[in-house]
Amino acid sequence: MRIIGIDPGLRACGWGVIDVDGPRLRHVANGTCRPSGSDMGSRLMSLHLLLTAVLEAHRPDAAAVEQTFVNAGGQSTLKLGQARGIAVLVPAQAGLTVGEYAPNAVKKAVVGVGHAAKAQIAHMVAMQLPGCAPDSADAADALAVALCHAVHLQMSCRVAAAVARA
Amino acid sequence: MRIIGIDPGLRACGWGVIDVDGPRLRHVANGTCRPSGSDMGSRLMSLHLLLTAVLEAHRPDAAAVEQTFVNAGGQSTLKLGQARGIAVLVPAQAGLTVGEYAPNAVKKAVVGVGHAAKAQIAHMVAMQLPGCAPDSADAADALAVALCHAVHLQMSCRVAAAVARA
Repeated sequence: MRIIGIDPGLRACGWGVIDVDGPRLRHVANGTCRPSGSDMGSRLMSLHLLLTAVLEAHRPDAAAVEQTFVNAGGQSTLKLGQARGIAVLVPAQAGLTVGEYAPNAVKKAVVGVGHAAKAQIAHMVAMQLPGCAPDSADAADALAVALCHAVHLQMSCRVAAAVARA
Repeated sequence: MRIIGIDPGLRACGWGVIDVDGPRLRHVANGTCRPSGSDMGSRLMSLHLLLTAVLEAHRPDAAAVEQTFVNAGGQSTLKLGQARGIAVLVPAQAGLTVGEYAPNAVKKAVVGVGHAAKAQIAHMVAMQLPGCAPDSADAADALAVALCHAVHLQMSCRVAAAVARA
């Protein structure tokens, strides 16, 4: 199963693709979309085009998007929400269900605790996906989101298998 | 010139189309998109499809979206931002430039003051667009956004004409 993780943003939108084969994880690709355009409409359209191209190139089976938060006031949250809308729309348009994870859930799945530092996440991503070399901090976050989704899917499978055995 | 105004929302997204011919304004159509779907991805995709159909049916030359605000915390603002992302994306994909107006700017353009009540806006919309019969409060807001854009475009034209005469 191939999973894409997306860390949404209007200036830089990170993405990371991994393959999951039972307990085995493999890094496929990662990168950063940097939308162009002077007004909001063109930037959102640019982000839509860039992300659509990433999905067409890597054809994932599932997608997960980080529920990023800003505490810098309503205006910034509204702008981030717009980028997030596109980040959720694009995989939905490709027929994928989109998992959504709060930053703390991502940290807990990848590092084991909910309040890990950025550097610790990057370290654990590199450990679990040897040779991944994230393109940017946003791409590293996106790979962490993909890992988080993989962990949740593996848990669901184990629960389903246990239920089937019972 | 045909203008579409959009009042974004995930449950109900109002839209209103008007024709502007010099100082004359005419109501064309209005309505409310109610996206379906249980998860965020399907709702955003549904909103994208519904709004795209509205633009294809009425083929506006310009678009304006309200910069709606919620003070109910980051989570609600983030969700509204996602709907807003789609509301700005769809006209941009149709090749239109998208005007963005804060609620106070809309009120000032339509009623004359920045702190008008909802009922007052609906009344002024009905006055300026005889027979418009808004489908919902969101559709009335959307018509107000379209009127606001018309006022701003008329002002720009007058300024340009004055500059040309000087």
